[in-house]
Amino acid sequence: MKIISREEILKVLPDIDLIPAIEEGFVAYSTGKATVPPVGELLLEKGEVHIKYGYISDEPYYVVKIASGFSGNPKIGLPTGNGLMLLFSQATGEPVSVLLDEGYLTEIRTAVAGAIAAKYLAPSMVRKIGIVGTGMQARLQLRYLEEIVDCREVLVWGRSEENLAKYRSEMEPRGFEIQATREAGRILHECNFIVTATPAKEPVLLSKDLQPGTHITAMGSDTPEKQELDTGILKKTDLVVADSIPQCLLRGEIFKALEAGAIMQDDLVELGNIISGSVPGRTSDDQVTVADLTGVAVQDIKIATAVYEACSE
Amino acid sequence: MKIISREEILKVLPDIDLIPAIEEGFVAYSTGKATVPPVGELLLEKGEVHIKYGYISDEPYYVVKIASGFSGNPKIGLPTGNGLMLLFSQATGEPVSVLLDEGYLTEIRTAVAGAIAAKYLAPSMVRKIGIVGTGMQARLQLRYLEEIVDCREVLVWGRSEENLAKYRSEMEPRGFEIQATREAGRILHECNFIVTATPAKEPVLLSKDLQPGTHITAMGSDTPEKQELDTGILKKTDLVVADSIPQCLLRGEIFKALEAGAIMQDDLVELGNIISGSVPGRTSDDQVTVADLTGVAVQDIKIATAVYEACSE
Repeated sequence: MKIISREEILKVLPDIDLIPAIEEGFVAYSTGKATVPPVGELLLEKGEVHIKYGYISDEPYYVVKIASGFSGNPKIGLPTGNGLMLLFSQATGEPVSVLLDEGYLTEIRTAVAGAIAAKYLAPSMVRKIGIVGTGMQARLQLRYLEEIVDCREVLVWGRSEENLAKYRSEMEPRGFEIQATREAGRILHECNFIVTATPAKEPVLLSKDLQPGTHITAMGSDTPEKQELDTGILKKTDLVVADSIPQCLLRGEIFKALEAGAIMQDDLVELGNIISGSVPGRTSDDQVTVADLTGVAVQDIKIATAVYEACSE
Repeated sequence: MKIISREEILKVLPDIDLIPAIEEGFVAYSTGKATVPPVGELLLEKGEVHIKYGYISDEPYYVVKIASGFSGNPKIGLPTGNGLMLLFSQATGEPVSVLLDEGYLTEIRTAVAGAIAAKYLAPSMVRKIGIVGTGMQARLQLRYLEEIVDCREVLVWGRSEENLAKYRSEMEPRGFEIQATREAGRILHECNFIVTATPAKEPVLLSKDLQPGTHITAMGSDTPEKQELDTGILKKTDLVVADSIPQCLLRGEIFKALEAGAIMQDDLVELGNIISGSVPGRTSDDQVTVADLTGVAVQDIKIATAVYEACSE
């Protein structure tokens, strides 16, 4: 039983090729090789907890991931997110490893999924990257896009000047040219590749501002309550991609749009099927595409396995 | 973050007063103070995994328990069961402790629940204890009954002479007088306090053998497939007690009997309500009582918290 600290995880992470690993996870999921039961959820007075678990056939481990968000934590000097990942043997049930990542691997695998969505769905020429939100995920999404998208011009939207300034000062040294705005409409007017990464419960981006040839990766909404895009955006979208169709029927932007009758379940395409080539991704630069990422346990399985193996070498 | 080994757990366990702790857990559950989502389940090629989790309001921790059963393990020299328990802060989500109990605390809290059922439901004079099964739980149930039931005469049923002999040789030095049988009918004819602890998928005890004044604690069946009592037994039972009514509607003996129309949902009584005194337990020595124990996360919450606190003193 190997206990792996956050420090050890941070040390091995840069040497792991996460994009192909997590792509494999999505393909395993969409081809029925992964068993991923519905997400366990625990609502506490001060926070919420998600338990994601499952396994991929022919792999050595089953994985359980516990991730929490406690919104009052920053007031007492603690990060909002926390959690850990557990690996167990698929052959005997024996615990193999506890990864004390404090929720960091969830952040990373989420950002990597954004990069994967970009790889298959971004327009061939990204003019300007739009980032909606200024938090941890708004930073990580941009960092992991570096490998996939050449564009270095970024427009970031946030509610507070202070957070926008912080975002700028942190991301500019990485080689991005960052403009900031508090007008969300500008994002859809100026950017053709957009990532939304807020915990909003009311739409931030509105269909009246949507332009042809736009891609949006919506990764903020992962519960039935959260919503970043008005349902009109999904109605106008040519290709609506879910990380997991069964999960998106119950949570996220797709759930909201289905509920509003803006899209039909038959219109949905799963990310893993685009990665494997069994269904096409973006086929023209005029299309509007949306990837709704709610987070699937296969991402946790793949990142936990990769980190454990890197630490065991 | 405190990692607690199996050795440390075994060391502190004898000094913890588990019966009142777990009684409190059942009462919290039955009075709505515990949040216990449905059990997570993972079926693998070689085994099965249960994830139980939840919290009790006004307590410091939320608990996640992972417990597995891999039936082929003994062939390769490993125990069938494994698993661990995790404590997290209810205030911040921070991981507090990993209890590397290898499934042992699940065994113990299950045995303690059996003792609690005996405390409230056993006939005033236990003539002979009947144990159905010869495995780990068949041993632990008897050990934890020591504190509650004076009777030391035991009839044990099993399918193999070898396992019966092992059971005898292990339990007799603890002060029990053990007879063994391979005729299950004898259990109901000779014993008025019975514990069933097998993974049977076909009834072992049959209603034709049932005698007035019998109590049966059925703790083997914890899935929709498993069954130890024919549904006629529950039909003839005066008081059918569930550890958790919602859980017993979906798994265990009660599930089977409801499905067969042998009992009605309104007939069910919850163990926590008997412990708190809000509904009566056994009221006469002629009654037939059955406690169907499927295992509730409150037991895990209580035992994990007690062990962690004992290790932190």
